[in-house]
Amino acid sequence: MFRNQYDTDVTTWSPAGRLFQVEYAMEAVKQGSAAIGLRSKTHVILACVNKANSELSSHQKKIFKVDDHIGVAIAGLTADGRVLSRYMRTECINYAYSYESPLPVGRLVVQLADKAQVCTQRSWKRPYGVGLLVGGLDESGAHLYYNCPSGNYFEYQAFAIGSRSQAAKTYLERRFETFMDSSRESLLKDALFALRETLQGEKLTSSNCTVAVVGVGEAFHTLDKETIQALINEFEIAGEEAPAEVPDQAASDEPAAPEEGAAPAAEGAAPMDI
Amino acid sequence: MFRNQYDTDVTTWSPAGRLFQVEYAMEAVKQGSAAIGLRSKTHVILACVNKANSELSSHQKKIFKVDDHIGVAIAGLTADGRVLSRYMRTECINYAYSYESPLPVGRLVVQLADKAQVCTQRSWKRPYGVGLLVGGLDESGAHLYYNCPSGNYFEYQAFAIGSRSQAAKTYLERRFETFMDSSRESLLKDALFALRETLQGEKLTSSNCTVAVVGVGEAFHTLDKETIQALINEFEIAGEEAPAEVPDQAASDEPAAPEEGAAPAAEGAAPMDI
Amino acid sequence: MFRNQYDTDVTTWSPAGRLFQVEYAMEAVKQGSAAIGLRSKTHVILACVNKANSELSSHQKKIFKVDDHIGVAIAGLTADGRVLSRYMRTECINYAYSYESPLPVGRLVVQLADKAQVCTQRSWKRPYGVGLLVGGLDESGAHLYYNCPSGNYFEYQAFAIGSRSQAAKTYLERRFETFMDSSRESLLKDALFALRETLQGEKLTSSNCTVAVVGVGEAFHTLDKETIQALINEFEIAGEEAPAEVPDQAASDEPAAPEEGAAPAAEGAAPMDI
Amino acid sequence: MFRNQYDTDVTTWSPAGRLFQVEYAMEAVKQGSAAIGLRSKTHVILACVNKANSELSSHQKKIFKVDDHIGVAIAGLTADGRVLSRYMRTECINYAYSYESPLPVGRLVVQLADKAQVCTQRSWKRPYGVGLLVGGLDESGAHLYYNCPSGNYFEYQAFAIGSRSQAAKTYLERRFETFMDSSRESLLKDALFALRETLQGEKLTSSNCTVAVVGVGEAFHTLDKETIQALINEFEIAGEEAPAEVPDQAASDEPAAPEEGAAPAAEGAAPMDI
Amino acid sequence: MFRNQYDTDVTTWSPAGRLFQVEYAMEAVKQGSAAIGLRSKTHVILACVNKANSELSSHQKKIFKVDDHIGVAIAGLTADGRVLSRYMRTECINYAYSYESPLPVGRLVVQLADKAQVCTQRSWKRPYGVGLLVGGLDESGAHLYYNCPSGNYFEYQAFAIGSRSQAAKTYLERRFETFMDSSRESLLKDALFALRETLQGEKLTSSNCTVAVVGVGEAFHTLDKETIQALINEFEIAGEEAPAEVPDQAASDEPAAPEEGAAPAAEGAAPMDI
Amino acid sequence: MFRNQYDTDVTTWSPAGRLFQVEYAMEAVKQGSAAIGLRSKTHVILACVNKANSELSSHQKKIFKVDDHIGVAIAGLTADGRVLSRYMRTECINYAYSYESPLPVGRLVVQLADKAQVCTQRSWKRPYGVGLLVGGLDESGAHLYYNCPSGNYFEYQAFAIGSRSQAAKTYLERRFETFMDSSRESLLKDALFALRETLQGEKLTSSNCTVAVVGVGEAFHTLDKETIQALINEFEIAGEEAPAEVPDQAASDEPAAPEEGAAPAAEGAAPMDI
Amino acid sequence: MFRNQYDTDVTTWSPAGRLFQVEYAMEAVKQGSAAIGLRSKTHVILACVNKANSELSSHQKKIFKVDDHIGVAIAGLTADGRVLSRYMRTECINYAYSYESPLPVGRLVVQLADKAQVCTQRSWKRPYGVGLLVGGLDESGAHLYYNCPSGNYFEYQAFAIGSRSQAAKTYLERRFETFMDSSRESLLKDALFALRETLQGEKLTSSNCTVAVVGVGEAFHTLDKETIQALINEFEIAGEEAPAEVPDQAASDEPAAPEEGAAPAAEGAAPMDI
Repeated sequence: MFRNQYDTDVTTWSPAGRLFQVEYAMEAVKQGSAAIGLRSKTHVILACVNKANSELSSHQKKIFKVDDHIGVAIAGLTADGRVLSRYMRTECINYAYSYESPLPVGRLVVQLADKAQVCTQRSWKRPYGVGLLVGGLDESGAHLYYNCPSGNYFEYQAFAIGSRSQAAKTYLERRFETFMDSSRESLLKDALFALRETLQGEKLTSSNCTVAVVGVGEAFHTLDKETIQALINEFEIAGEEAPAEVPDQAASDEPAAPEEGAAPAAEGAAPMDI
Repeated sequence: MFRNQYDTDVTTWSPAGRLFQVEYAMEAVKQGSAAIGLRSKTHVILACVNKANSELSSHQKKIFKVDDHIGVAIAGLTADGRVLSRYMRTECINYAYSYESPLPVGRLVVQLADKAQVCTQRSWKRPYGVGLLVGGLDESGAHLYYNCPSGNYFEYQAFAIGSRSQAAKTYLERRFETFMDSSRESLLKDALFALRETLQGEKLTSSNCTVAVVGVGEAFHTLDKETIQALINEFEIAGEEAPAEVPDQAASDEPAAPEEGAAPAAEGAAPMDI
Repeated sequence: MFRNQYDTDVTTWSPAGRLFQVEYAMEAVKQGSAAIGLRSKTHVILACVNKANSELSSHQKKIFKVDDHIGVAIAGLTADGRVLSRYMRTECINYAYSYESPLPVGRLVVQLADKAQVCTQRSWKRPYGVGLLVGGLDESGAHLYYNCPSGNYFEYQAFAIGSRSQAAKTYLERRFETFMDSSRESLLKDALFALRETLQGEKLTSSNCTVAVVGVGEAFHTLDKETIQALINEFEIAGEEAPAEVPDQAASDEPAAPEEGAAPAAEGAAPMDI
Repeated sequence: MFRNQYDTDVTTWSPAGRLFQVEYAMEAVKQGSAAIGLRSKTHVILACVNKANSELSSHQKKIFKVDDHIGVAIAGLTADGRVLSRYMRTECINYAYSYESPLPVGRLVVQLADKAQVCTQRSWKRPYGVGLLVGGLDESGAHLYYNCPSGNYFEYQAFAIGSRSQAAKTYLERRFETFMDSSRESLLKDALFALRETLQGEKLTSSNCTVAVVGVGEAFHTLDKETIQALINEFEIAGEEAPAEVPDQAASDEPAAPEEGAAPAAEGAAPMDI
Repeated sequence: MFRNQYDTDVTTWSPAGRLFQVEYAMEAVKQGSAAIGLRSKTHVILACVNKANSELSSHQKKIFKVDDHIGVAIAGLTADGRVLSRYMRTECINYAYSYESPLPVGRLVVQLADKAQVCTQRSWKRPYGVGLLVGGLDESGAHLYYNCPSGNYFEYQAFAIGSRSQAAKTYLERRFETFMDSSRESLLKDALFALRETLQGEKLTSSNCTVAVVGVGEAFHTLDKETIQALINEFEIAGEEAPAEVPDQAASDEPAAPEEGAAPAAEGAAPMDI
Repeated sequence: MFRNQYDTDVTTWSPAGRLFQVEYAMEAVKQGSAAIGLRSKTHVILACVNKANSELSSHQKKIFKVDDHIGVAIAGLTADGRVLSRYMRTECINYAYSYESPLPVGRLVVQLADKAQVCTQRSWKRPYGVGLLVGGLDESGAHLYYNCPSGNYFEYQAFAIGSRSQAAKTYLERRFETFMDSSRESLLKDALFALRETLQGEKLTSSNCTVAVVGVGEAFHTLDKETIQALINEFEIAGEEAPAEVPDQAASDEPAAPEEGAAPAAEGAAPMDI
Repeated sequence: MFRNQYDTDVTTWSPAGRLFQVEYAMEAVKQGSAAIGLRSKTHVILACVNKANSELSSHQKKIFKVDDHIGVAIAGLTADGRVLSRYMRTECINYAYSYESPLPVGRLVVQLADKAQVCTQRSWKRPYGVGLLVGGLDESGAHLYYNCPSGNYFEYQAFAIGSRSQAAKTYLERRFETFMDSSRESLLKDALFALRETLQGEKLTSSNCTVAVVGVGEAFHTLDKETIQALINEFEIAGEEAPAEVPDQAASDEPAAPEEGAAPAAEGAAPMDI
């Protein structure tokens, strides 16, 4: 194999103007179990697949409450994600203490991105190996952001990250036009359907997923297992494999996401944006 | 042999998004002598195999009291484990001094994990080479956590780490459904049976194991040799090789842990969770 | 391939007196989506191509307001650009606080360039991977600068950076002589025409571009989509492919930009100036 | 020879979870001249072989008084040992000043081990290259510890380190069961016999060994040459090659240390305990 | 090609006592566009070739005012030059504030050289990649210095640096004997003639050069385009290719600069002086 | 030649537990011109060979006064030796100031050794390349120590270091038993005889040696040339090649230093003691 | 060529106990233009060859005044020399301020040497690449020292460093015995004769040399050109090629410096003294 001399140090540019170490850190996001987020005008749903290390353990926590109005779902190195979500928690507390109002979601996301950027420019650190879907509600409405190891962030209507997230993204792309005015219930349904897409031959149950909600009049919280199972049952009772009429409707004014197979590199994590 | 250029520096990502140095540190846990933990609603048992360096020495201490309500069993580099357990001790003392109440177990575990995470992101340090089973009792009940060199932690009903821990895990997987409501005595029995599984052709005696208990009304303490020997004798008198009826009962609503041989990589330590 | 031993460390000079790492960072600018700037006596227009990562996301923000009188358009690493634009914001606030007048554009540009220069002379950092078009209005009139990863800056009448920026530069070179006395409307029109040049076979719509204006009596702001679409419609109604008479007029007292193909290295980013 | 890429940096883990630099530092202990320690309920004896660099010099000091109640014998890099023993001295003084009571032996040993552990986790230091036998008396009785370059420590009834220490360990293993209740005289006798084992064809005289004692009512001190020679003479007069009846007695309830040849790696220093 | 192991680190001496990294930085000066300086008893002229990156930009500024009595012309990395000229500015301000008199030119030049020297002796920095012609007037008269990346400086009657500077130096060598008593006008004429020598087949116009003057009763300032063009026109009217009689006169008491071709290494920048 | 990967960094252990960089530094001692020391109950003599760089220079100073009661003779890097001897001087002054009594020799020697040890454990320094013979007088009598680059020190009756020191050591080994009760004159004679042994075919004169004395009632001072020459003349007059009867006497109760040829590695500097 | 792994880092010892980087820095001294010094009881003369970079520049200054009673002549990296001579200046000022008397020459030389030594023991610096002849007058008379990059210094009656200094040294060796009682005039004559030896086929004129004097009643100053030329003329009038009778006289009680050709390594700079 050809030895690449530009890809072992985060402060070394390749001749083509790339930072390989940052790109490699973004690969770590793709290795994590899937997480999805979606939002309406009033609500944000975060959901993720639970992968327990063993029957003996509870699953690894991948969704964290940051404040009453903000939560985060992660894919990638859990330890990095935990450290970053605590940083977010601290920022929210400090802001609330200083200004007596909740920290706007977009502002927190920028601070988080800056913290990540620093790790892409110092020789004695490494980029964080985690992607974060940040959902929250503030005076400007419900928001969903994706924070990437590169120090970039993106605002999304809906997004999915982690392993096999492409299938979920395909589902979300077919449906997202209706999300803005979705009811909370409808949004939850879409979240569960999208999540199901990331499960390869596995059945969606309240045990292998976590779902959290934040919305108008509803502080960020994780749904309990019974509620999730009830939702799963309710929707499956309806027997709908996927709401088939929706893609058609969406396709009418939006080109269908074509040839997914042709862009495998984009799967699971946004490419390093330059 | 092919030279891997990404695996000598903890701040270097591999092209596939892995941190090899962190994974190698997790190997150190697998080399240590076995440690197990299990819990009921009211009690946590930590136990480990004693490996004396020589007849002349007492065995290496692998179970440490952190506070009256918390203890820890380690596998891997003992020196790293000792340093971390003292850190835990200090945190407990500081918390008790500030809040006049014991430090909740989960909170301590997060602080410990954060301390480990830092060592996975600085070029001038190395990841800790030790796994820690943290058992404790607080207002929310009895808890058992596993802290890993990667900076991750997991909550378990029961777990085993270190060399030959897979056999113990198999035993615990067959039995763990009953643990929640186990009596202290029954839990101790399961601990000793699980520990026996990690001894390759060696007989379990009060000399080659250490057992510690923390529970409701019972501060964390290590059992004395006589008590352990008495328990061993009592259970062996019963002649039970392993409580054979339990797996069946467990199997009724839980798929049996299948094909252990197919997942040798998972033996002894949880894989680096991403 | 021949291994270059002088191109992995930003503090290492090549035998020919080049700093390869700085040149590589300048390549990153060429990889970013295109951004253009142009100015009249009274106005500066910044415009860029929007490249959304997916249908689900809003596009990556590439134009930032720095102060009422200054804005910036970037090409290259967005995270680096964001960090630098916030630095500019802070400098403006501090200056305004100390002197009760807006920070002159040229002065800010020098501070920005100095910040970039530092990163080309320390072994533990890397050069920024972003080019910035800084547009602003101060007592000395409207200004447009280009700040480069090398720590250089250039004042321009009009400029384009990023991928496929050469086509836009060719357009601007044909037209720039008229810009100084252009009306705001005419300048906007040229901005949109230049931007269209960077779109390979794509149609210019209000969705795939962002346009911002700062001028006399007009604080820096991004135009809303309706305004942009209206402008696009208005100009395309006129059917003009490109205002063909202008190049001729320009050519009369200015040699036409010759043989673009002969200087491909200059495309997208200014070469490291020495 | 195959080049090992994991063994030049103390912060680099090998793929098998080993820290080679720490293991190599432990080799330095095996190269040092032998030191032994043994204890009864009331006394600890430290002894070592004197190796003078030349006739012209006094022998290198290998046994250091730490405090009235603690002393240390070293094998390995003398300079490292001296630095560490002075650290111990300072700790004893500080403790005595603060608490007006002698520093408990076990507590000092932990501090010493922690100091060694730090050197196994920083890229700009190296592990200490010295093993220390720490003997002392405190409220909990007489103690003998072995502190290893890895940052580990072990409590021993009796132990030997350094070159040819295996022969001494074999002697001690045969005898140690009687040590607990030994008289001071008997313990001294065993110390000298054990020490003799490490001398390859050399005769034990008061010139080639140093012996120190700490015990109830007896501050740590090194015996003078006359006393040692007198003891040697006295015991040799008795003509006993080795107290042959003891091993038998010991063997009755303890398996004899078998096949020393089968574990040559363990000779001289405890393996890096994990 | 033979790999030189001594030329990638500024703190590494070659076996022959050379610092290659410093020499390589001096190459950067040779790559820059030409700059020249010359002085009479009362005036210093600095002049340089303007190389615009594109028609759209103003040319890169290469001559900076430092104080009313000092200016600088640079060749090499512009960003480095800008940072250094601002340093000079600050020093002048501080001196004037403390001593209420202008900073003597020679003193400033030494401070500048010392700042450059530091960068030749620290492993984490790189030598500056810029040469500076410092011209100024103080109580001891008019001065012209050349400051080199090596931390050396030289006082000159006249000098030229940068690409194709050798031709200018040849011109200056023929003429310099007359400079001391030149009038301001005559000095300007020589400056323009010398500058013309560095233009390969290009015509000297007010657009491709910058000329600055400092002299008795004349603060440092750059001449405006009209003045320069007027001078060019005036002198070219005279039709003189080069004042041919002067070299002869000079040759009479000074050996002519022989065999320039024999010392190509000296072209553009003074060799590292040792 | 086989490339040793463990011998370029002072913080890297070799697999056999050696620190090669420390051993290499000890080689520097062997390269220095010879220095010897010897002591009686009341006096210490330090002497060394003078090697002038040229006729034009005074010889390099190799014997330094530290305090009235202490002096030092060095072999190896003179600059390192000078820095260390000034450190010793400072320590003596500080001690005298604080305690109003002279710093005991042994205490100073330990501080010196500790300073050297630090340089064997930090990656950004190098071990000192100098050996020091420290002679002094304090309340416990006359002392002679040898401080080695490894951070070790040894007390000697007499010792020689540097090039060709083995011959001097052989002489001293034959004679040292008589030194303790030697008169000052006799000691001086032995010093000169020993020194003569290190001169290969050169004649001992007052020009090629320096001799210093410290003793009861005699502050440390270097003898003047006349005194030395007088001594040389006086002893040579006696025609004694070497006091032949003494070795015999010494041999009677001490085995003669046998087979020097068999231990060439020990020549000139004590091996790194472990 | 064989790659030497010990010669790129100043903190790395070679197996033979050498510091190659220090030796390479000493090579830089040999590359510099020649400098000589000589002294009588009352005067010190420093002289050097002027090498102008070009006709256009004044020659590089190589002789610096440090204080009224001290001056320095350098060979090697001028920038390093300038920085060091300013350090000396500062030390003189501080001393004079504190003690109201001039800093003794020997004391300054030691401080200078210590500053150089530090650069031979830190991994992030490089040794200075300059040799300094320090001449001065204090209460103990006239002194001449040579300070070397290794951190060593030597006192000389007369010395020459730099390129072709060997010829000058040969001259000085023949003559130095008469210097002590030389008159100022006679010393100047010897200085000029010695300097002439370093000029290969070039004629000594007041233009290609600098001469400075410090002496009783005569502050350190550089002679003006007229004075020097007058001296040259005066002595050459006398036609004496070299005072031939002196070597003979010198040879009578001093062996002639034999076989210079046999020690070419010693030319120009003193070898690294160990």
